Amino acid sequence: MIYLKRKEKFCCAHKLSVPDWSDEKNKEVFGKCANPNFHGHNFTLEITVRGEIDPVTGVVINLRDLGRIIRTEIIDVVDHKNLNLDVEWMIGKMPSAEVFAVEIWKILEPMIAEYSAELHSVVLEETDKNIVEYYGG
Amino acid sequence: MIYLKRKEKFCCAHKLSVPDWSDEKNKEVFGKCANPNFHGHNFTLEITVRGEIDPVTGVVINLRDLGRIIRTEIIDVVDHKNLNLDVEWMIGKMPSAEVFAVEIWKILEPMIAEYSAELHSVVLEETDKNIVEYYGG
Amino acid sequence: MIYLKRKEKFCCAHKLSVPDWSDEKNKEVFGKCANPNFHGHNFTLEITVRGEIDPVTGVVINLRDLGRIIRTEIIDVVDHKNLNLDVEWMIGKMPSAEVFAVEIWKILEPMIAEYSAELHSVVLEETDKNIVEYYGG
Amino acid sequence: MIYLKRKEKFCCAHKLSVPDWSDEKNKEVFGKCANPNFHGHNFTLEITVRGEIDPVTGVVINLRDLGRIIRTEIIDVVDHKNLNLDVEWMIGKMPSAEVFAVEIWKILEPMIAEYSAELHSVVLEETDKNIVEYYGG
Amino acid sequence: MIYLKRKEKFCCAHKLSVPDWSDEKNKEVFGKCANPNFHGHNFTLEITVRGEIDPVTGVVINLRDLGRIIRTEIIDVVDHKNLNLDVEWMIGKMPSAEVFAVEIWKILEPMIAEYSAELHSVVLEETDKNIVEYYGG
Amino acid sequence: MIYLKRKEKFCCAHKLSVPDWSDEKNKEVFGKCANPNFHGHNFTLEITVRGEIDPVTGVVINLRDLGRIIRTEIIDVVDHKNLNLDVEWMIGKMPSAEVFAVEIWKILEPMIAEYSAELHSVVLEETDKNIVEYYGG
Repeated sequence: MIYLKRKEKFCCAHKLSVPDWSDEKNKEVFGKCANPNFHGHNFTLEITVRGEIDPVTGVVINLRDLGRIIRTEIIDVVDHKNLNLDVEWMIGKMPSAEVFAVEIWKILEPMIAEYSAELHSVVLEETDKNIVEYYGG
Repeated sequence: MIYLKRKEKFCCAHKLSVPDWSDEKNKEVFGKCANPNFHGHNFTLEITVRGEIDPVTGVVINLRDLGRIIRTEIIDVVDHKNLNLDVEWMIGKMPSAEVFAVEIWKILEPMIAEYSAELHSVVLEETDKNIVEYYGG
Repeated sequence: MIYLKRKEKFCCAHKLSVPDWSDEKNKEVFGKCANPNFHGHNFTLEITVRGEIDPVTGVVINLRDLGRIIRTEIIDVVDHKNLNLDVEWMIGKMPSAEVFAVEIWKILEPMIAEYSAELHSVVLEETDKNIVEYYGG
Repeated sequence: MIYLKRKEKFCCAHKLSVPDWSDEKNKEVFGKCANPNFHGHNFTLEITVRGEIDPVTGVVINLRDLGRIIRTEIIDVVDHKNLNLDVEWMIGKMPSAEVFAVEIWKILEPMIAEYSAELHSVVLEETDKNIVEYYGG
Repeated sequence: MIYLKRKEKFCCAHKLSVPDWSDEKNKEVFGKCANPNFHGHNFTLEITVRGEIDPVTGVVINLRDLGRIIRTEIIDVVDHKNLNLDVEWMIGKMPSAEVFAVEIWKILEPMIAEYSAELHSVVLEETDKNIVEYYGG
Repeated sequence: MIYLKRKEKFCCAHKLSVPDWSDEKNKEVFGKCANPNFHGHNFTLEITVRGEIDPVTGVVINLRDLGRIIRTEIIDVVDHKNLNLDVEWMIGKMPSAEVFAVEIWKILEPMIAEYSAELHSVVLEETDKNIVEYYGG
């Protein structure tokens, strides 16, 4: 069993706020992240898959396949977008790094399972100080 | 003459679009950066000042003074904000890294001149691939 | 279950030496790290907590609470200090990254347990080549 | 139980290709990595060992011992070399990051076991986007 | 006048050796870089252009144009290639970072001059310890 | 004319304080950097030299010569030392990054001049937020 990580970067706007709450309450709970007109980040997405090494090719999964899945399913959909308004599978959800990571897992897990590897973790780096890791389950 | 750099990070939303242009034209010129609902970045701001070394303290400018000026004049004003909508001195201007760097220069240059150093450059890193440098003039 | 990491940096002096040993023996065992007049590092501290995502706020723990605990309990106490001489809970202990990480765990573990999350790991990066990880127990 | 990581960098040439396959088939499977005249990388190797903290020295393994083993057994052998042609224990094997990590494990695992620690993982960063992790077994 | 930098990464094999010299002499002068079977690097290329800010678009040059020129003229030609054997405009030249940077300048300088900006510098990072900068002339 | 940079890292303790001043005054001027028992940093030293490309070797200066000079004259002298107490050419001087950079220049400038290149700049990174650059004169 070996683990292969692939990192990609993308840029989004988002804001953290509960629609039912007042601006004051949202600011109290989410601080600067509740700014009504949004703010944004350069996110780093780190996808780790695990599997056996193929005895002929020496790799756990073809990097081009893995790269293509991540790019077409996630990066092309979220890059230079507003997570609250533009990304269909995030609309109506809280666009915290935690929820965002879980939604990315739900999309990638079945697609990677069609190949020779399993999804192991989704890591989202929002800033170089704040990072979320999700291992499913 | 010696140069002292100070780096700070902040997170903003913005979009690049000419208000008079159609969405199509804006998309053609600015690509993904024209997304109508904004996108965002973790910016790195690098301020460089120059001056003589003070013979007693051994420094060109007190780092606490320099840090305070950058923080109160720029970081506190732009962090977790929307450059198009929330930052008074950017409203109505194109929030490209180029224009943003020039506006930061205009604010910091006279304030640093009150101390023992001169502003030398404003560098804005929008992503780790795109960086703008302004030296005034 | 999801994991949230928070990274902070601080700067300390320290030296590695067993008080009962001669300078020669300390130098033989600890190499350059035994320099009698101390040396120092820019440490990076990475605190990871785990818990369930709150269904309303979408986060595992309020980042402001987590940030405040790390800052007041650790960063404010150790930053720009000498680990051998200035930090009460390190005095008389060997200030290796290993021992330092365990002591940080002891302080943070009960404080984070009062919130909606558990401490998962303490990671200390002494240089970009030497890193220690502690998971408790 | 505590974990200690050590990172080292080295530079190699390699190519990914199955000798029995045509250039076309190799290019189809391995893409640019199949370039017949090789390409190369600045690899980062991260070795993690685990063990108990020595009550006298405060460390899990003497860093100088760990550093020396990694340097003499791996870095000196592979740095500025061609993995396909110059490194005895890689010749005839596919020099993928996966296979390379497993071979490094086989060399280091028994050597570290002679000290007060066990090898926990071998991580190879080929580029800042592609990373392989091996935990043995 | 403002400066815009664009960074791209690519991976090459190369070796430094004077064909007329013996292996011993090459090794004496170029050290490990003379390894006959090549070694390789993850290069970072940083292209800086300078010009006036366009009053309508707020940018010095369209990033998509700049990105496309760098990618099609340089990255696509050198990535995952052997500088000594595969890159037409390097064959027969010493593939040092110095010579490589000058050749990249010769290619990009006239192409960028067709746009609203001038090439200011070519920076090549061979490893994170060795960097070459060329400003033309 | 081309520029070659070489980066090295080292770890030191230091404190900023004017011996004639009270602890209070030192703390007022230098803040946390005045801590009487020292603090420390992982410094990055970036030495840039400039010269013509040698037509035979393709390089501006032999990297092994440049590396050896920096290592023996600076790194071996300051690494894991206390700048206030252990480094002969810093004793009695204020160990600010500014003064430290100037002293490094004085040592390296005549030594590099014996080779085919001139010293262009000394850059000292004290933390990833504070950087000093010195160009002589």
